[in-house]
Amino acid sequence: MKNLLSMEHLTNEEILHILDRAQAFEHGEQPQVARSYNVANLFFEPSTRTKTSFEMAERRVGCTVIPFDAGFSSALKGETMYDTVKTLEMIGMDVVVIRAKEDEYYNELLEGIECAVINAGDGAGQHPSQSLLDLYTIRKEFGTFENLNITIVGDITHSRVAKSNATALTRLGANVRFLCPEEWAGDFEAAHSWDEVLEDSDVIMLLRIQHERHAVSKNFSKDSYHDEFGLTPAREKQMKREAIIMHPAPVNRGVEIADELVECERSRIFQQVQNGVYARMAILETILKGRK
Amino acid sequence: MKNLLSMEHLTNEEILHILDRAQAFEHGEQPQVARSYNVANLFFEPSTRTKTSFEMAERRVGCTVIPFDAGFSSALKGETMYDTVKTLEMIGMDVVVIRAKEDEYYNELLEGIECAVINAGDGAGQHPSQSLLDLYTIRKEFGTFENLNITIVGDITHSRVAKSNATALTRLGANVRFLCPEEWAGDFEAAHSWDEVLEDSDVIMLLRIQHERHAVSKNFSKDSYHDEFGLTPAREKQMKREAIIMHPAPVNRGVEIADELVECERSRIFQQVQNGVYARMAILETILKGRK
Amino acid sequence: MKNLLSMEHLTNEEILHILDRAQAFEHGEQPQVARSYNVANLFFEPSTRTKTSFEMAERRVGCTVIPFDAGFSSALKGETMYDTVKTLEMIGMDVVVIRAKEDEYYNELLEGIECAVINAGDGAGQHPSQSLLDLYTIRKEFGTFENLNITIVGDITHSRVAKSNATALTRLGANVRFLCPEEWAGDFEAAHSWDEVLEDSDVIMLLRIQHERHAVSKNFSKDSYHDEFGLTPAREKQMKREAIIMHPAPVNRGVEIADELVECERSRIFQQVQNGVYARMAILETILKGRK
Repeated sequence: MKNLLSMEHLTNEEILHILDRAQAFEHGEQPQVARSYNVANLFFEPSTRTKTSFEMAERRVGCTVIPFDAGFSSALKGETMYDTVKTLEMIGMDVVVIRAKEDEYYNELLEGIECAVINAGDGAGQHPSQSLLDLYTIRKEFGTFENLNITIVGDITHSRVAKSNATALTRLGANVRFLCPEEWAGDFEAAHSWDEVLEDSDVIMLLRIQHERHAVSKNFSKDSYHDEFGLTPAREKQMKREAIIMHPAPVNRGVEIADELVECERSRIFQQVQNGVYARMAILETILKGRK
Repeated sequence: MKNLLSMEHLTNEEILHILDRAQAFEHGEQPQVARSYNVANLFFEPSTRTKTSFEMAERRVGCTVIPFDAGFSSALKGETMYDTVKTLEMIGMDVVVIRAKEDEYYNELLEGIECAVINAGDGAGQHPSQSLLDLYTIRKEFGTFENLNITIVGDITHSRVAKSNATALTRLGANVRFLCPEEWAGDFEAAHSWDEVLEDSDVIMLLRIQHERHAVSKNFSKDSYHDEFGLTPAREKQMKREAIIMHPAPVNRGVEIADELVECERSRIFQQVQNGVYARMAILETILKGRK
Repeated sequence: MKNLLSMEHLTNEEILHILDRAQAFEHGEQPQVARSYNVANLFFEPSTRTKTSFEMAERRVGCTVIPFDAGFSSALKGETMYDTVKTLEMIGMDVVVIRAKEDEYYNELLEGIECAVINAGDGAGQHPSQSLLDLYTIRKEFGTFENLNITIVGDITHSRVAKSNATALTRLGANVRFLCPEEWAGDFEAAHSWDEVLEDSDVIMLLRIQHERHAVSKNFSKDSYHDEFGLTPAREKQMKREAIIMHPAPVNRGVEIADELVECERSRIFQQVQNGVYARMAILETILKGRK
């Protein structure tokens, strides 16, 4: 595995290898890398948890992290992504982790770049490291993906997480369903009421309402979204006994999920954050072991 | 000591312990910590010296510092302080150092958060690490706080430094007085002329005029403030033989203090910066020794 | 060598010593420094490659790099450059690397500052580390500077690179010429057509068109600049057999140089980036060896 760009590029075997390594790290095993590699994190969009999670994972696999301030870079002077990454490669980076606004920005990095590229989110495209941590969280809970009912709730068409997860979970044997207001379904087949999906879901995966992208919607205030599509205490009580709640965070408390459910017993929201470090260590180890 | 949030939470014994450890570090002793701990610095307001001082102190006690760009974080997406800090804890932080605009922002971190919180300034509230370095500077000079006349000059009601210091110095036996224009005194009893305080002060502690918060004042230009309340060369000559000048910096040269006095013999302004690293090492060591 | 502020302050011997050390590092030699020194990078203007290159070089000579966010610093509160640097010195920095908008900002740092200062670009003044990496690139290619025809193309009067390089290359025996539109020549004697300089140049050193500073010019669009002063494939074919192309980057592809020439055989543009790390390691080693 040279790069990690999209879940669609990974075989089931590669996915399961990464999950196995994440599990090994959670159980205390040390990453197996030949030397200290140089990494830079290029975040052209804000993100606390993804960037910080990578920063931690990089240190735990022994990398030297070279700071890169995207808000203050030559990209402001109109430099192409290729030239920015090629420059970092010539400075000595072995890996660059990139989040950018443009869908599939990485296509211009496929030729001529030798350092490894990890996609930390491309526009409304993919977010594979988030997907891998979600998969790790689900497998840790249920031991398998086969026949699990997994319901993804929210703005599916604009969500990197929804796409990355739907692709991978389906391939791994899960039954993925969507729940969202009609106007958000796009080309996806989706339920429009909790009644259709609440009681038989093993995993309810809530998506963040992107206030940044659109103000909930023309037809919904935050409150009415919560009433119709939010996970309320009443709905939580109707969930299957072993079912879990996931959310990629940051959470809009009181919108996607009731404030008091964020840390309830079924919630894996903060455990997902912890799992993210193990998943990213596994991604880094896998990529670094492939380098000469 | 789990957290350091306000000088009001510290006993005199805890204060004196921190000062003793700061002194030990200045004399070359190595910090006693069990392992390398993970720290993040969350500065939601600009600050060169406090942030850089913590960054240095953290490295000197062997911490791994994980960068956190507050100007580019999920706080922009409306995430609560609790969720931001809980996320960092789940990523693996042992300590977070926070500066924020809101008074007592830390109240929402008192329950449910296991990583240690060090308050690096809350709105117009407290700034305990600055206070501890000021106390260290004074004790280094005089060996005691008992019966010292300490005059704090400037915008007392809006100053974190004034509040943190007045609390602690009084408890430790010093005689704290204030000097400021009448309109700035608020509920404090304050002198309004240098004549009342200049000649018997052991310490003159100048506060920064917060141009950011108010343009000196309705009644004062920079020049007229300097004339009436600034420390001028003529006033410096009237100070007691052993008296010292302090300022938390950054200094407005020619406003709070005449340009040529900033590095005069009595000035401890840059020594305060140096002492700040020792004081913060002592804070970190004290907190880290309390963790399992 | 205490500081590195301007190429004009370096003797030929000092320059050649730095180039020799850069070469040694490229061949795998380890830097010879007594201990881990503390460094901060103060970049008051955006720059990917210079800052990142210094960050890498600093780590390779074993420095501890203390992050400094210039966009978020006390300079915003009106602090003088002297006070900012003195503060960093008191916090424990051995070296500060500074890029700033003001020409010769470093003049206020010549007295009273004990930490070393490396100028990473001052306004329209000097950019000595870029100059040293350019010199290293040229010497690596030709083994000497004597009698080389070096043509610098672009906005000479506003270019730090042009000034730093012209000074040094001339002293080292090269024949430096300029090519630019008439209106940009200022006091420099310059050619205004490729015909005068193309065929006998050993080095063509393109300068970046500073969109940030002026919109190409009153008389030129990007396209017409490219037609008249850009390096086109047709012109590249007329260059001497061994001649090379240089550019400090970031490149405006299709303006200073045709897109397809950026990585052509003669181009040293990305090698310059790589050489920059060696040159900066050599600068740091030279300065650190001079410290007690």
